[in-house]
Amino acid sequence: MVRWQPHASERLVVAALELFEERGYENTTVIEIAERAGLTKSTFFRHFPDKREVLFGGGTMTGLLVDGIDAAPAGASPLEAVAHALDVIGREAFTADRREFGARRSAVIAANPELREREALKGLGLTASMIDALKRRGVADLTSRVAAELGALAWKIAYERWSDTNNSDNFGELARRTLTEVQAASALC
Amino acid sequence: MVRWQPHASERLVVAALELFEERGYENTTVIEIAERAGLTKSTFFRHFPDKREVLFGGGTMTGLLVDGIDAAPAGASPLEAVAHALDVIGREAFTADRREFGARRSAVIAANPELREREALKGLGLTASMIDALKRRGVADLTSRVAAELGALAWKIAYERWSDTNNSDNFGELARRTLTEVQAASALC
Repeated sequence: MVRWQPHASERLVVAALELFEERGYENTTVIEIAERAGLTKSTFFRHFPDKREVLFGGGTMTGLLVDGIDAAPAGASPLEAVAHALDVIGREAFTADRREFGARRSAVIAANPELREREALKGLGLTASMIDALKRRGVADLTSRVAAELGALAWKIAYERWSDTNNSDNFGELARRTLTEVQAASALC
Repeated sequence: MVRWQPHASERLVVAALELFEERGYENTTVIEIAERAGLTKSTFFRHFPDKREVLFGGGTMTGLLVDGIDAAPAGASPLEAVAHALDVIGREAFTADRREFGARRSAVIAANPELREREALKGLGLTASMIDALKRRGVADLTSRVAAELGALAWKIAYERWSDTNNSDNFGELARRTLTEVQAASALC
């Protein structure tokens, strides 16, 4: 019988981040991550398909982003719909108590090529989900692709700004301001 | 003594693509690629750091892109500078005789998650190189980032169009037209 483990996924993520910081991603095993979290290897694999995946939230972000775009007001422009989704992410995922974790996670990913590759692929997946969500709103194919790229860039810049611990603005506000800046810059290209 | 092997790199790429098509990326070894090309494993590793890299040209594309942006006319807008670079790539790399190879390469990459990850990371690297090249032209930081993302998207769409073997337009023309479409779409976002 599988025993219910409260917050197992979060505990695994925190344990993994600590171990990657202490001894490096390459020198950490899934068993060690599970042990540090007080869980078993099989619990790890119920939450994540492999070690690389543990810092990438197993699809939560995609779900929030797509739901946010779907729920944007009917008359919203493509980038307003993206801004609405980034607001949702600010409220549900990138909350103030996660800011320091965000900065540590970014540093660990930057230090490891395998994690950078996984992050790059995740980025493409998020962009593809945004494109599909925008197309469901009736946005033309090419406009959806462009809006998703601009949205992904704004997300990335807003995340850089938000995970700077000297910054106290919330993610949704930062993302909205960054999207406006990105849109203005696109007119100068 | 290292013996000079004419076109060794190209032969390795062609051999790798054939083997990946025949038996899959996972089931192909570096030794088999070298053997198919009539070369040795150590020749392979003089040209590519690992098996994943063999379909990604070892940096040639980045060089062409950066040189193309650097050589664009002084008054060119950021996207005109990118268009200039894509022309260079059309003349030097994506020539008509490479079109069929391009389509086969895309199919092999799409079929394998490890290759998709490497492609995603290469894409980020190309975008980063474009950003640096645009900044060297005096383009503002954020405008450089936006122009590089729009340029990367236009490149991707133009490559999809170009590697469709029903299409006879050259890559440079396709890329220029696609960039114009992408820029027009950005105004609708």
